[in-house]
Parts: sequence; structure tokens; C-alpha cells
Amino acid sequence: MSVARMLTGDRPTGRLHLGHYVGSIANRVRLHRRYESFFIIADLHMLTTRNRREDIDQVSGNAREMVTDILAAGVDPESATFYLQSAIPEVGDLNTLLQNLVTVPRLERVPSLKDMARDAGKEEMPYGLLGYPVLQAADILCVKGEVVPVGRDNAAHVEVTREIARRFNHLYGPVFPVPELIPADTPSLVGTDGAAKMSKSRGNSIALSDDAATVRRKVLGMYTDPNRVRADVPGTVEGNPVFAYHEVFNPDRDEVADLARRYRAGQVGDVEVKERLVAALEGFLAPIRQRRAEIEADRGLVDRLIVEGTERTRLEVRQTLIEVRRAMGLTGAYQQVRRRAERSRRRTTDASA
Amino acid sequence: MSVARMLTGDRPTGRLHLGHYVGSIANRVRLHRRYESFFIIADLHMLTTRNRREDIDQVSGNAREMVTDILAAGVDPESATFYLQSAIPEVGDLNTLLQNLVTVPRLERVPSLKDMARDAGKEEMPYGLLGYPVLQAADILCVKGEVVPVGRDNAAHVEVTREIARRFNHLYGPVFPVPELIPADTPSLVGTDGAAKMSKSRGNSIALSDDAATVRRKVLGMYTDPNRVRADVPGTVEGNPVFAYHEVFNPDRDEVADLARRYRAGQVGDVEVKERLVAALEGFLAPIRQRRAEIEADRGLVDRLIVEGTERTRLEVRQTLIEVRRAMGLTGAYQQVRRRAERSRRRTTDASA
Repeated sequence: MSVARMLTGDRPTGRLHLGHYVGSIANRVRLHRRYESFFIIADLHMLTTRNRREDIDQVSGNAREMVTDILAAGVDPESATFYLQSAIPEVGDLNTLLQNLVTVPRLERVPSLKDMARDAGKEEMPYGLLGYPVLQAADILCVKGEVVPVGRDNAAHVEVTREIARRFNHLYGPVFPVPELIPADTPSLVGTDGAAKMSKSRGNSIALSDDAATVRRKVLGMYTDPNRVRADVPGTVEGNPVFAYHEVFNPDRDEVADLARRYRAGQVGDVEVKERLVAALEGFLAPIRQRRAEIEADRGLVDRLIVEGTERTRLEVRQTLIEVRRAMGLTGAYQQVRRRAERSRRRTTDASA
Repeated sequence: MSVARMLTGDRPTGRLHLGHYVGSIANRVRLHRRYESFFIIADLHMLTTRNRREDIDQVSGNAREMVTDILAAGVDPESATFYLQSAIPEVGDLNTLLQNLVTVPRLERVPSLKDMARDAGKEEMPYGLLGYPVLQAADILCVKGEVVPVGRDNAAHVEVTREIARRFNHLYGPVFPVPELIPADTPSLVGTDGAAKMSKSRGNSIALSDDAATVRRKVLGMYTDPNRVRADVPGTVEGNPVFAYHEVFNPDRDEVADLARRYRAGQVGDVEVKERLVAALEGFLAPIRQRRAEIEADRGLVDRLIVEGTERTRLEVRQTLIEVRRAMGLTGAYQQVRRRAERSRRRTTDASA
């Protein structure tokens, strides 16, 4: 029995932070060995909101940092194929062929696209951004992905892939698997400032590659219960980012329960709660930092993985496009013209012989 | 000085009729020798409204009929490159790269797209149909078209191409010419039933390849002035399809003026006016029919033209895509990864040597 294929990945935004880890990387670390795993570096998706030359010039460096983080976080390079989306032009070809299998109102119902446009400062929705889920369908279907881990933001996107796959198979015959969604098992992580989402551009993130001193500084500066002006004032644990991080990253459940009890009772200072979080995060981040150093010491390792993965994936995608064009009848259309041309050329040659 | 490039073409709907001739073919016959002319057989555009397998299975036959008609109408195969759009996958790649250079509201302002959706019986706008002008931009820009003849329906489409070309050049440097529009010099032709548009599916068309008997039958059945019940009743020339056709196809201006005068005065029967039109159309269509017979006698000629044109165009498009990806920085992004990988591989080899 062959192993099912998993497709997952990110836009190449550079180094990853704890929010990325919780939202998707943890899920991938857990899942990737069970499947034949493809990790897309989705630079064409980046173009939907950032397409200036200076953005694109950062793709190569950002891709390397991102893949380094993914490996450092625990993804085994022997069990993962990394590839650079824009280096496989057949993805754009497939995107064009899939565009007629979904409607504008359907895409307008995908919730996060408008937020993405607004976050990117776009007054009007770029056509390519409305088609973000179609390009994602091309990514998933071009390697015949059967399993897609999804976070809160992209489950609705990948639902479009399922519809496109079904529609294609209905119109042209069974070419694509209809991929299954695997939801992330943790909610998303708040920023160090308490904002709903951790993001590098908001300056409320802790990177997987931050050194110990930086992590400590960021944790000590974290937003907590604003009403708690002294250690003996009872504090609120719910919605308190420091406790939210304890929940996710502190494996000592007794310590967390004890801190929460004392916090509610006004029997522990914010600094102690934060220092315990620093220690817990160190326990989590130190091995990642160590693996990152090893990966960086093997200079070119990540680049070699990307090149090998991209070459391998391109072969897969080309094979898929052959099947797609054959199923749609496009190959047949041109073959018929060529055969008629060939026959007539042969007749001419025979006649003049 | 090099000759400017012209890009024009049609979806492969099969045999052409007088409406096609007046709306676009006449313009091309007049223009094509002045330019380096590319004629696209736009089957990917057909997919925006008709994408069932049985539609696609007609592409090859329809393409042959259409190109045969274009040649019969007076386009010189020595001065035209015909190509099948779907046989050049790089067009889909370019389409994907251009999608972020135009917004959804801009495309929604293109007037004819909603009509196209409605005519195709689509309750909701397919995403690909909203992007029709983007794919057209890819068609024109992939061969660096500098001149595009336009009819009433597509001038607004091609305006989008101009905007995309300017936007691309602004972001990434001067890769594309901003194509000039050449409007058709004649208004569109009404159907034989007096409806605003001649179309095969409405059954109100006269094909360029109709035989003399068919043309006569269709003309004698044409809609005229409905108030004119007898030849001695004064009739209306304005908006009368038979006189509209006389205007376009009857080179004998005196005869047309005389017929109009007598028609208005109730001094000529409908049948005589129609018989004169039959004669005029015969004068126009007989040479086309004759050329069509010659082209068909040279079996495989049209197919050979399409294959040679497609191969030639594909080389051009590939070259354009190399420039596009280089200008955008996408080539550089992957090259950097490859160079770093290559350097590290060399180091490993050197160390083990």
C-alpha cells in the first residue's frame, strides 16, 4: 500500500515564530513522517499581496531561513520534500486551467481574503488575491495531495480545493484525489502584547531562533493583567498571554496550576510567573536553537534540500499536467491537428518520391 | 527597422459568418501584411464559458474550419502565424504572473463580461471569465504584441492589457510594449432576422462558406420592413437588414441608391431588393468559396500552418517568459538557492578529494 501524500507550506516570510509553531509547524512535525510530505515555499502566493521587486529579492534568503526553522523545529529532511513554487512554471499553467471551475461569488465567500487585502493595505482586491484559493488548489492538486493540514485561517481556502477537485473529476474523469483536511489541534497563539495574532511586523513575536537573552527580554516585557498593579492584587489568568504561553509551552502542569492559583489569590508576582515562562520556553527553544546551529554549520544543506526537492517536485507536476491536459482533451486537440499535418506531409513526400 | 507585431484571433467556434467578417476579419485582411501578424486560436478562452469535454473535443475541427475561412477571406498564410493557445502552456504561466497587476473592481468594470456570463447561461460569474482580460493580456504580451485590432466588444478588454503592461514595466522594468488599439472601421452587422448580432446559435447568420443556394434561401427569408405588406407600399430603409447588407456588400453604389429611393417610394418589391443582394453577396462570396475549395484541396495545409505557427510561437513565448521571470526576480531567487547549493556541493567534493 502506498503512503498518502501531504501538502503543506508557507509564503517565504523569513524566520518563524512561536505563533507559526503553534498554528502549523507543530502539526507538521507530528504528521510529516506518516505521509509522503511536500513542503511548498509559496512565493507566488506572496505576490498576491507583495509583488514589488524588493519583496521578490528577499525570497531566496527568506526561504532558507524558513526551511532552517522548520527543520530545527523537528521536521526530518529525509521525510520531507521542500520546493520553491515559482521554480515550477507548470503550477501557473494548472492554475489557469482550474480557474473556470469556481465562481467569483464562491471565492468572495472565503472569509480571510478580505482581511488579507486590508492587512496588505490594498484598497481594491487584486484579482490574484481573490484567486488565492485557486492557486492553492493548483499547489495541492499538482502533486495530487491527499492530506492537507490546516490552521484556522486556511481551512476555508482548502475547502475550495476539494470543490475544484470534485468538479474537475466530474467534468473530465478521475484525475485528482479530493484531499482530506487535518485541522491543527491547538488554537492560535496571542502576541506578547496580548493582540489576537502573533506577527513579526507587529513586533509582538518570539522567533524560534531568538537567543536566550532576547526571549527573556521579550517575556519580561509581556502584556499581563493590566489591573494588577502589585503582586498582592488578585489577578486574572483567563486571556492573560503569559498564562496562555504557560499552557502551551510549560510541560510542568503542576507548576502551571500552582502559578495560576497563586496568581488569582494575589500570592505571586508577575516577574516570577514570567521567569517560570522564560525557563519553560528555554526548555522548548534550546533544542531547536541547537539543531538550528547544526543545520547552519552544514552550509548549503538547506539550499541543496530545496534544489533537490524542487527538481523532484517538478517531475511530479509535469506528470500531473500531462494527465490533466489529456483528461481535459487539450492534448488530444493539438494531437489531432499534428496528426493531420503529419499525414499530409507524408503524402507530399510520397508523391514527390 | 523591424516591423511591429500584431496579435489578433478568436475562440475556435467553427466556420465564420458575415458578422465575423465585418466585425474583425475584414480589418485583419486589410492590416495583416503591414505587421508581423499572430493569429491566436483561443481555446483557453473558450473554457471560460464552455469547458465540457465535448466542447473541447470540437476544438481541433473548429480550429481548422476557422483558419480555413480566415485564409479564404484573404489572409495570406505567408504573412500570418496561426497558433493554438492551449498548446503553449507558458501562456498559463504568464497569466498567473499577471493576475496580481489588476484588481477585481477594475475587471468588474469591463462591460461585456457580464453579458458573456449571461449568454453562456452562467448564474454566477466563473472566476476565469472575470479574468478573461488578464488571459488576453497574457496572449498579447507573451508575443510582445504592439498592435491589436479591436471590435466593439473587446476594446475595453484590451485596455486592461495596456494597464497591465504599464504596471508590469513600472514594477519590474521595461519588458512589454504597451500595445496600440486599432478599431474596426465598420459597425457590427445585424442578423438576417434583424436581431442586433449575427450568431450561428441564433440561426440568423450567413456563413462565409455557405453555398450559393443556401445564401439565396437565407437572403430571401430575411427580415425587412414588417409594415410593408405589398410592393407598392412605401418602405423604410433605415434599420432594414437587407439595406444594411447592401450598404456593406454591394459595391454598386448607384444600384443601392436607386433601390433605396424606389423602396421608399413603394416602387420596388422586396424580392427584387433581395435578389440584387443575392447577386452582390455572390460577387463577394464566390471568390472566398473558390479559395476555400483550393485550400481544402491542399489537404493538411491548414493543419501544417497551425503546427508550424504553434511551434514558432512557443519559442517566442518561452523567450518572453525568460525575460519576465528575470525581470520579476523569480529567476534570480531560484538561481541564488542553486548557486549556494552548488557551492556547498563543491566544498563537500573538495573536502573528500
